[in-house]
Amino acid sequence: MSVPLIPRRELNFQLHDWLDVGALLQAPRFAAHSAETFDAVMDGCDRLAWEVFAPCYQNADREEPHFDGDRVTVHPQVAEAVRAFAGSGLVSATEDESVGGMQLPVVVEKAALVNLYAANIGACAYPLLTMGNSRLLLAHGTPAQVEAFALPQLRGEWTGTMCLSEPQAGSSLSDITTRATYERESSFGPQYRLDGRKMWISGGEHEILGNIVHLVLAKVPDADGKLLPGTRGISLFIVPRSLVDTHGNAGERNDVTLAGLNHKLGYRATVNCALNFGEGRFKPEGRAGAIGYLVGKPGEGLAGMFHMMNDARIGVGLGAVALGYAGYLHALEYARNRPQGRLPGPAGKDPSQPQQPLVAHADVRRMLLAQKSYAEGGLGLVLYCAKLVDEARIARETGNAAAAASCDLLLDILTPIAKSWPSQWCLHGNDLAIQVHGGYGYTRDYKVEQLWRDNRLNPIHEGTHGIQGIDLLGRKVSMFDGAAFSAYGALLDASIARAVDTPWAALTDALSIRLASLRAVTASLLQVADPVARLANASAYLEAFGHVTVAWIWLDQVLALGDRDDDFAQGKRQAARYFMQWELPRVDAWLDRLADNDDTALAMRDDWF
Amino acid sequence: MSVPLIPRRELNFQLHDWLDVGALLQAPRFAAHSAETFDAVMDGCDRLAWEVFAPCYQNADREEPHFDGDRVTVHPQVAEAVRAFAGSGLVSATEDESVGGMQLPVVVEKAALVNLYAANIGACAYPLLTMGNSRLLLAHGTPAQVEAFALPQLRGEWTGTMCLSEPQAGSSLSDITTRATYERESSFGPQYRLDGRKMWISGGEHEILGNIVHLVLAKVPDADGKLLPGTRGISLFIVPRSLVDTHGNAGERNDVTLAGLNHKLGYRATVNCALNFGEGRFKPEGRAGAIGYLVGKPGEGLAGMFHMMNDARIGVGLGAVALGYAGYLHALEYARNRPQGRLPGPAGKDPSQPQQPLVAHADVRRMLLAQKSYAEGGLGLVLYCAKLVDEARIARETGNAAAAASCDLLLDILTPIAKSWPSQWCLHGNDLAIQVHGGYGYTRDYKVEQLWRDNRLNPIHEGTHGIQGIDLLGRKVSMFDGAAFSAYGALLDASIARAVDTPWAALTDALSIRLASLRAVTASLLQVADPVARLANASAYLEAFGHVTVAWIWLDQVLALGDRDDDFAQGKRQAARYFMQWELPRVDAWLDRLADNDDTALAMRDDWF
Repeated sequence: MSVPLIPRRELNFQLHDWLDVGALLQAPRFAAHSAETFDAVMDGCDRLAWEVFAPCYQNADREEPHFDGDRVTVHPQVAEAVRAFAGSGLVSATEDESVGGMQLPVVVEKAALVNLYAANIGACAYPLLTMGNSRLLLAHGTPAQVEAFALPQLRGEWTGTMCLSEPQAGSSLSDITTRATYERESSFGPQYRLDGRKMWISGGEHEILGNIVHLVLAKVPDADGKLLPGTRGISLFIVPRSLVDTHGNAGERNDVTLAGLNHKLGYRATVNCALNFGEGRFKPEGRAGAIGYLVGKPGEGLAGMFHMMNDARIGVGLGAVALGYAGYLHALEYARNRPQGRLPGPAGKDPSQPQQPLVAHADVRRMLLAQKSYAEGGLGLVLYCAKLVDEARIARETGNAAAAASCDLLLDILTPIAKSWPSQWCLHGNDLAIQVHGGYGYTRDYKVEQLWRDNRLNPIHEGTHGIQGIDLLGRKVSMFDGAAFSAYGALLDASIARAVDTPWAALTDALSIRLASLRAVTASLLQVADPVARLANASAYLEAFGHVTVAWIWLDQVLALGDRDDDFAQGKRQAARYFMQWELPRVDAWLDRLADNDDTALAMRDDWF
Repeated sequence: MSVPLIPRRELNFQLHDWLDVGALLQAPRFAAHSAETFDAVMDGCDRLAWEVFAPCYQNADREEPHFDGDRVTVHPQVAEAVRAFAGSGLVSATEDESVGGMQLPVVVEKAALVNLYAANIGACAYPLLTMGNSRLLLAHGTPAQVEAFALPQLRGEWTGTMCLSEPQAGSSLSDITTRATYERESSFGPQYRLDGRKMWISGGEHEILGNIVHLVLAKVPDADGKLLPGTRGISLFIVPRSLVDTHGNAGERNDVTLAGLNHKLGYRATVNCALNFGEGRFKPEGRAGAIGYLVGKPGEGLAGMFHMMNDARIGVGLGAVALGYAGYLHALEYARNRPQGRLPGPAGKDPSQPQQPLVAHADVRRMLLAQKSYAEGGLGLVLYCAKLVDEARIARETGNAAAAASCDLLLDILTPIAKSWPSQWCLHGNDLAIQVHGGYGYTRDYKVEQLWRDNRLNPIHEGTHGIQGIDLLGRKVSMFDGAAFSAYGALLDASIARAVDTPWAALTDALSIRLASLRAVTASLLQVADPVARLANASAYLEAFGHVTVAWIWLDQVLALGDRDDDFAQGKRQAARYFMQWELPRVDAWLDRLADNDDTALAMRDDWF
């Protein structure tokens, strides 16, 4: 049994009926596109998912990357999948035609990628990092840097990585100690020698394609040789695995070496490793030290990296959604085909009658509805954010700075939700998918256990759950005098207003009440002067905010159904009803404690544990 | 780093200060015991856990049982651990001295076992099944059956299994098709030949000790050769792996063969397999068919097996608690020793200051408090149930039938909670333990990922979560005209009354309110005539019931602290406060829906998914 694909009817509903991506076609940027070109991209992705990515999902898990002391071996089917993705044109799909892209809307790209993620999330990590890397270079690199390092990635010839964390500095990037010492000017900008160790580098070492472009955060020492504490001292460098020769080809090896592979709980298709920069194993241009080229200005490295962070975080959310959706589809298939037990009560108890399929049991339907509500709600959240990216870009390109700013505001405040909510709840969905399978779900004969393991990474990488909470409550809701939070509230208000005279009015009241609570809680928390006290329950705030947001997504989607009454529409309505009735009320327990900013965790002392 | 042991101060607090196990010493059954003998047993278990079980926790996971087509190989350290347990006298610890036991209270046995579970849950499965098997035989077997099959297990010479499920019949035992055909009378009772396949058999095939005693559910065909549908046709049989010769030793191989190993997500120290009975590979007494000896009467097999089910389910809860507690201890140790980041705000932000340990962050303390509240709350729940087992036994032995019945009532209603609540929430605790570790928690260098994988089994085996909900709402709360539910309510009322004039009065009100809701919801659900509708949300009912119950456990524990103000007591209080403030209010969302018996899941149709 292979991974079932997320139905096109769902993707089309979200893209066309709900988000009206057709309206994007008015913009000059997307003029060459049509519903047909969107479909063609999605068809291509589905084929790639089905034929290349899905078949090695379990194999890649069972035979994880191996290091023999000299070379890293990646499962050959994974390497093939990475090369197939690179050769598909997807890496540059949303980029300008001038760099070989197809100017595809980001929202369509995300909808197309979701089945690749669902088929084999670990194999997707290589091209995804390549996309993030090359986009960052397009935004911040010099023309020479773009030419030498971004274009080969966009053409599918090389891959890229992001090197931020170090063994002692994960969430706290201000504490990195990788050191970059100025050497000379080069044709790719100021050339430095880097020295340090980076951790958790996905796709950090392999030989799947021609070269690896590492984007590395490091600190430039001052005149006394000291590193500036904090984030202000962080700069960004291009550090290719192999240096680029005069023909633009990968040539001499740079002084970047594998320090060790990380052996993970999931995502095992992805090489994830510690890298040593400048350990001296290679001597590029005659001496030890990894050669790196400065991107942008010194000290502005983190800003450059964070420019890409919204995209990376939305990508994490999409990955979590894809795994949650895949688990749901597996559970649904199993529940429909596995006979087990009979309905309670005298009629059902007759053991001479055949057993009922699992789906006949209300408790199993509850578990399926929950998964559906998480997966489709999360998908909506991520696609909504992706469409904001497109709208902001169109607005900027057509000189509408105000419209662009308002899209950016919403994107800023929704990003921590789009990252954290699917990571939490689609993981929970995977847990339910195992439960639907019973004992079989606990075996490696079925894929749901791997989906669950793979998804467990998502609340950790690209900013942990706790970091997202601090980002939301400590920065996003208060920035620009609360403008982003106001815009968010207005967005929900508009949908709520549209629901007034519909059958959803009662459930919409349930949302209005929670939105009012969220506003009150937000105002009162922002009054707390001590930031330590203000942020003590930031994760609970994040979770309440997330559930309110997804309730809004569901409301907005059912409004888009209009009076359709086919099975698809009825299913969406029932999932929306599930979310409103069983999920949204959870937030009261959190908002009540946030309202008085409960100090239980804050007051707990280390010695008392 | 090995698995840290659950602190003795916690176990002693629960046993002595809270549950007053000293009072048990008044009973003739426990007259030979004292606080010192209890300590000695716990010391022995801790030593065994530390020296033998913990060292192979990860090895056993990495090198799972292997079948070469002929023999099953178990990791040698696991085999050694099983033999060490068997040799320790623990298998018979709670049994009568007349069968070699030490008449240890069950509550002390559970407290002693918890560190073995925490150290290596998979290796514990072999002796635990042996204990369940031999206890069932002591209760239902003939003297000859006890002599031949129970005593060798109790002496640590053999192991035992429970064979209930079949590939097509898991939760629905009425659909088993293993067939038992009468052959002749034997010295071990009526002898049958069994034919069929059993699934999910833990410890089902190995050569760690001298023999394996399978207890097998099967159906005896009627005169027409048909199997009676339903559970009434189920009988129980002793099917030894090797037949017992005239000297009581394991001799000729019975016709029981391995059909295949199950490759699981966790619990990999345990051989778990499908077994074929009567496939003809062995021909005991000259012909094919697995020889089995009837236990009790024909058709009463399930009743005999369910006699042991309370104990097995409480054991699952204890296992989940142990894994949750182990994860908490790992996370605490990591949080104390891993520096990462600084406190929010101007003071904390100074990057020239050293980083703070993780535990300095309120969000990390929240995650640790949650884990502590789940692990210690769950431990309390399980130990409370275990003490009821002891009290019921004492009452029966001293002729106090009414007291015994009232203990049994409470035990009946608490068992689905003791099984399901730790399985759900201590698993969630393991998720938080990974989160505290950040990226490192996602690697196999740390143990928290394995604890999480291992714990995932607990909501599945010995009756899934959904089955526990149906047991509670469909049977336990209504049985004997609601007597068990009344007894449960009275138990909580008593603690609530004791809290009135304490500092816990306000939080106790929070519990009173939920108990009142639970009573109202229970009464209204019992009015629903259609059992399908009544049980549609049984899992939500189970979860609300569970959180109310554990809130009571916490209240009762803090009342037992009195006015102690040492770190231990303060920590318990803060965990109780966490549970009352952040966890208990979750139940409102469920109880509100249960109050109007929401039909979202019930009304969902298969076609709509």
